[in-house]
Amino acid sequence: MTCYEEILKMTREREPLVQCITNFVTVNDCANIILAAGGTPAMSHVKEEAAEAVQKADALVCNMGAIEDTEAMILAGKEANRLGIPVILDPVAAGGTSLRRTTAKQLLEEVHFAVIRGNASEIRSLAGENVTGRGVDVSALDAVTEEKLPEAVKTVELLARRLKSVIAVSGKTDIVSDGDRTVLIRNGCATMSRITGSGCMVTSLIGVFCGASPKRPFEAAAAGLAVMGIAGETAESLRLSKGTGNATFRNDLIDAVFNFTENQLTEEIKIEVYRE
Amino acid sequence: MTCYEEILKMTREREPLVQCITNFVTVNDCANIILAAGGTPAMSHVKEEAAEAVQKADALVCNMGAIEDTEAMILAGKEANRLGIPVILDPVAAGGTSLRRTTAKQLLEEVHFAVIRGNASEIRSLAGENVTGRGVDVSALDAVTEEKLPEAVKTVELLARRLKSVIAVSGKTDIVSDGDRTVLIRNGCATMSRITGSGCMVTSLIGVFCGASPKRPFEAAAAGLAVMGIAGETAESLRLSKGTGNATFRNDLIDAVFNFTENQLTEEIKIEVYRE
Amino acid sequence: MTCYEEILKMTREREPLVQCITNFVTVNDCANIILAAGGTPAMSHVKEEAAEAVQKADALVCNMGAIEDTEAMILAGKEANRLGIPVILDPVAAGGTSLRRTTAKQLLEEVHFAVIRGNASEIRSLAGENVTGRGVDVSALDAVTEEKLPEAVKTVELLARRLKSVIAVSGKTDIVSDGDRTVLIRNGCATMSRITGSGCMVTSLIGVFCGASPKRPFEAAAAGLAVMGIAGETAESLRLSKGTGNATFRNDLIDAVFNFTENQLTEEIKIEVYRE
Repeated sequence: MTCYEEILKMTREREPLVQCITNFVTVNDCANIILAAGGTPAMSHVKEEAAEAVQKADALVCNMGAIEDTEAMILAGKEANRLGIPVILDPVAAGGTSLRRTTAKQLLEEVHFAVIRGNASEIRSLAGENVTGRGVDVSALDAVTEEKLPEAVKTVELLARRLKSVIAVSGKTDIVSDGDRTVLIRNGCATMSRITGSGCMVTSLIGVFCGASPKRPFEAAAAGLAVMGIAGETAESLRLSKGTGNATFRNDLIDAVFNFTENQLTEEIKIEVYRE
Repeated sequence: MTCYEEILKMTREREPLVQCITNFVTVNDCANIILAAGGTPAMSHVKEEAAEAVQKADALVCNMGAIEDTEAMILAGKEANRLGIPVILDPVAAGGTSLRRTTAKQLLEEVHFAVIRGNASEIRSLAGENVTGRGVDVSALDAVTEEKLPEAVKTVELLARRLKSVIAVSGKTDIVSDGDRTVLIRNGCATMSRITGSGCMVTSLIGVFCGASPKRPFEAAAAGLAVMGIAGETAESLRLSKGTGNATFRNDLIDAVFNFTENQLTEEIKIEVYRE
Repeated sequence: MTCYEEILKMTREREPLVQCITNFVTVNDCANIILAAGGTPAMSHVKEEAAEAVQKADALVCNMGAIEDTEAMILAGKEANRLGIPVILDPVAAGGTSLRRTTAKQLLEEVHFAVIRGNASEIRSLAGENVTGRGVDVSALDAVTEEKLPEAVKTVELLARRLKSVIAVSGKTDIVSDGDRTVLIRNGCATMSRITGSGCMVTSLIGVFCGASPKRPFEAAAAGLAVMGIAGETAESLRLSKGTGNATFRNDLIDAVFNFTENQLTEEIKIEVYRE
């Protein structure tokens, strides 16, 4: 059994409680994908109970789409740090506005994140590079092509070392690094960028897997990206055979996570060790 | 025609307007299940118009998942009480944090609820018992087994008498009591706990049925639990035959409410009179 | 190629970024229908970044369902006006409460809207007429029947001239007018009023099309209503053949927008020129 299969198995045994402070656009999808994976979602986002609520959680997800709840993220994040509960950051549209640049900086200063999962524009922005992101999507200029891969990996590895966090970049080629080890994952499909919430959902999955296996954030992040990518491939194949569109694709993707087998992960993961 | 069939028939004739002050996680599902049942949803949650908006409503649903809107619930609830419009409470995660314990207490003091629908942990918390709930789900310790049923019914009946409310506990065996009469309903399926919003949706259904038949909150609560449970059974049978997961299950469940027949309720309800 | 086909073609080429300040009930559906149409959604609703965020957008949608975000709408709307970015208003439940009447008035005073899309009750309220709307739905009294059509068109044309906006009324017969030109569109189906968000979604589509073709708001509004209506017809035909309900209908409708062809628009649009 690979470490990824083990994480899936432990998720189903432990049913980790994942506290999410997340945005109103995709909150329902995030809760349902957590349930699909075998976790238990808790979506309270009010600062008055943030620190108390996180005490029962196995992981905390802070999604910067809920930028109005930054204070709740900091309160819950500090308490989670104190208790050794892994905290996962989704820096939604981090470089998009000055408010988001400031907020991202503040979150990184106040809270230690076990994993940070973003697209290439968001991660480049956290690394202090100039980005060209438009809205919540990666820009064409920032997208990681095969040609730009070595440079992108370098940025990710440096950021991982500086923040002592696992950095996970999702895109056509996903990059996961803790600064020492780096893997690339090449699962997924184009329709994932035609639904809202692909990014938020994969971060939620990483939250579930970190909750199940808190000592292995690197493996949990890789497992999250792989399960999401493979589920996307399953849903894409259904979309093409049924002639459906992005709404049904979203449901099929969550269904694919619900029906995911440990065996399937080992058989379908397209993972490459970049640095051991 | 049974009283439950009558309530369904009246719902479709009257298209009751149900004002919901509810949480952002499941608000879309709640609106769609109200429409599926034949009602009309209104989801405004701002305190500045809460009391005025409820004046046109046939029922008001207060969902404590929207804990930031407690003031709107109280304003709307008091106005609904004044006008004789039934108010339904969903005490989401009532015992989960000190904020929620305080809020639940305040709501019960300020507003009279025709029906309160929660899981066993939430209802036990309202009854002043120590609970072990984790997040929004019932805890294994609080869940109502056949063995614990007499004790659970006693708690429900006492609370119903004390609050002069119909108390509805959903779970594997649902309990509905107004303090004098008590029924048990045994419809439903396991996948209902693998989607977010099962609880919020059944409370919304009870809201629709109370709006259609405001003088019969006991029967409306039982009808809501029965329709939800039977719709869950329909969706579960589709899930098993299609090999789908929890996302499609959610849609099939709402669809099943949309296509519900009065006849189906009488044929498929598994109801037992516990105390007449 | 008709102007409507052109707008569809340009949408897919330009992938317009549509900033939406919209309500929490249907925000996920709005984002997904924008993606289905070929646009890119950005759903930030906080006033602290509203004006900055809109600078990158091709269109701004202000949905009065998010009545708590009126200030953000005004800040973003003024900036969009300054930059020549089209702004679209959805006056949700405009006549429903005094708060909404005041808010609608304020929005119309502070921001110029390229297009305003509402139901007959909402548009009548903006025109200063007494309305009988209940919640977010058009009232039976306000609904535009064939008999009342001439009077309704007159109201729409006068309002369009007064506000220098394209006014789009959706209903069994849709009316679109810029004050000089008026068209009627008769696509759609009854089940569209059995899901939440039909109105919000068609306004989002109009936003995408305005973003793709900012100089032609009249044609963009008509294209939005036509695409939504035809997609509704496709979904209705699937619902009847599959025996599904309103939840699957919602997904099929968004899927139909995803799979929409330029050719289909020309073949299936039921449009009538009322005034050239």
